[in-house]
Amino acid sequence: MAAPIALIQGASRGLGLEFCRHVLKNKPLAGVIATCRDPDRAVELRGLADQHPGRVTVLGLDVDREEDIRRAAERVTESFGRLDLVVNSSAMLHPSGKGETSLKEVSAQDLISTLTTNTVGPLIMAKHFAPLLRKGGGGFGQQPVEKANRHSGIIVNITAKVGSISDNGLGGWYSYRMSKAALNMATKNLSIELGRHRPKVVCVSLHPGTVNTDLSRPYHRNVPKDKLFSTQHSVNCLMSIIDTLNVEKTGKAYSWDGTVLPW
Amino acid sequence: MAAPIALIQGASRGLGLEFCRHVLKNKPLAGVIATCRDPDRAVELRGLADQHPGRVTVLGLDVDREEDIRRAAERVTESFGRLDLVVNSSAMLHPSGKGETSLKEVSAQDLISTLTTNTVGPLIMAKHFAPLLRKGGGGFGQQPVEKANRHSGIIVNITAKVGSISDNGLGGWYSYRMSKAALNMATKNLSIELGRHRPKVVCVSLHPGTVNTDLSRPYHRNVPKDKLFSTQHSVNCLMSIIDTLNVEKTGKAYSWDGTVLPW
Ligand SMILES: NC(=O)c1ccc[n+]([C@@H]2O[C@H](COP(=O)([O-])OP(=O)(O)OC[C@H]3O[C@@H](n4cnc5c(N)ncnc54)[C@H](OP(=O)(O)O)[C@@H]3O)[C@@H](O)[C@H]2O)c1
Ligand SMILES: NC(=O)c1ccc[n+]([C@@H]2O[C@H](COP(=O)([O-])OP(=O)(O)OC[C@H]3O[C@@H](n4cnc5c(N)ncnc54)[C@H](OP(=O)(O)O)[C@@H]3O)[C@@H](O)[C@H]2O)c1
Repeated sequence: MAAPIALIQGASRGLGLEFCRHVLKNKPLAGVIATCRDPDRAVELRGLADQHPGRVTVLGLDVDREEDIRRAAERVTESFGRLDLVVNSSAMLHPSGKGETSLKEVSAQDLISTLTTNTVGPLIMAKHFAPLLRKGGGGFGQQPVEKANRHSGIIVNITAKVGSISDNGLGGWYSYRMSKAALNMATKNLSIELGRHRPKVVCVSLHPGTVNTDLSRPYHRNVPKDKLFSTQHSVNCLMSIIDTLNVEKTGKAYSWDGTVLPW
Repeated sequence: MAAPIALIQGASRGLGLEFCRHVLKNKPLAGVIATCRDPDRAVELRGLADQHPGRVTVLGLDVDREEDIRRAAERVTESFGRLDLVVNSSAMLHPSGKGETSLKEVSAQDLISTLTTNTVGPLIMAKHFAPLLRKGGGGFGQQPVEKANRHSGIIVNITAKVGSISDNGLGGWYSYRMSKAALNMATKNLSIELGRHRPKVVCVSLHPGTVNTDLSRPYHRNVPKDKLFSTQHSVNCLMSIIDTLNVEKTGKAYSWDGTVLPW
């Protein structure tokens, strides 16, 4: 079997960077394609690439720009011709860095920016990378015995529990919540379209818990210490889920502990 | 009690126009504020206004432009100072008029346009009109006996069954489905924020069924005749639901037959 290849989108910081670290450490044969907006400024990512010579390809990709995504897919097609895993990790809480606490703070422009990065970006990634995932070797997840149900690739959209409409008891964070609810619909739609014919691609949403990253920084002091995960812990949990994925588990949202999140 | 006032957004055609007709016919005391992108071209709406002298105010409002919404809210504040009902009816299936049948047909630009009109627009309407609904007299819906639970106004976001993530078994129509899933999250969030303190505003999503309008026209021949509702039938059903709304029923999506749609 060919060495598995994972593409991590939004790899400059936070969970995306940690996904790269995790795969490099725990899947010694796997290659990593790490995309970020500005490779020159992604110092930690470049350090990681230097520590693993020949295993990491860093590509510039602003998820807000379909042209960037198209071009990156072309590059991957030329260099690899296939993919086993795509993780869409990039997102923002809001252009200001803080979620809206009330309707008064909502603006059309900020909501559109948030939807563009958090929702449109991941779906456009799926559009351009699905053909490569269909050519994947199924190097991530758990393959069933029957050949007909094997998957060639996996798409992971990082969602958030606050993107669950059913679970929403507090309100607020309009832009972020709406962007993740719409992303969850994208996951469901992708799971149906990409699961219809062989080769099948699995698509799930994963909630990482509340994690110690820049995104959640404004709220860290409100989080009990044992509820604020390190990126290592969160990615460990999420990778354990990814390791068990198959076509039976496609089209759902899972929390870091493996439980299914309601829509 | 003051005469109830309903604002119908997206009133040039289809269900929005029918909502205006219905209120004028069935609530003989109610005033109607009908908004649409281009009042000059909304011939049927202007005809309706002429038939009901003094009862209809037509305002130009493109739901894609926050400035238009802000200005319309100012006009309503000056002329009426309050509102009892806002119906967000405008939407598109896709800029092309047809939903995407596969991922290949998805484009970032079209998805953003659809989200802007179908999702951002209704929420920005709620932002600018909520203060007027808080001053409403509760002229729509069903008021409970206890004063503490009375509502002053109602926001109705017209959603679609295909916007239900749980119910999605077919896939496709990416932009439209995602826009309505995100709109449903807006409904839930609004119901929480506007239901927290008195005066309370109720917010629900309503699915009109498959209705004989321009929006669904490309698909009419696939719909069994008895499943393709007239706008009259659909609005009759939706108004029967609105007539029973109260704070207990806020924050949910209802289908034309009164059943709760899962998220
Ligand atoms: N942290 C939490 O508590 C938490 C909880 C629930 C869900 N999540 C989700 O977890 C995922 C990862 O978040 P995180 O906590 O790791 O956040 P983070 O540390 O703030 O990292 C955000 C990442 O997104 C990238 N990004 C933002 N806009 C981008 C764009 N237009 N194009 C490409 N990349 C872009 C950033 O790149 P730059 O370096 O170029 O800015 C950065 O790499 C997100 O989907 C988030 O919603 C996080
Ligand atoms: N028909 C169905 O089978 C069906 C099924 C499920 C849900 N729905 C929902 O029902 C609602 C009404 O749809 P419909 O069937 O009545 O559609 P329609 O006949 O196509 O009417 C669409 C309306 O939206 C308006 N609109 C579009 N973009 C706008 C913008 N940027 N600003 C202001 N107004 C705008 C149009 O105004 P112009 O005249 O200026 O273009 C028109 O009045 C929509 O939310 C739709 O999603 C319909």
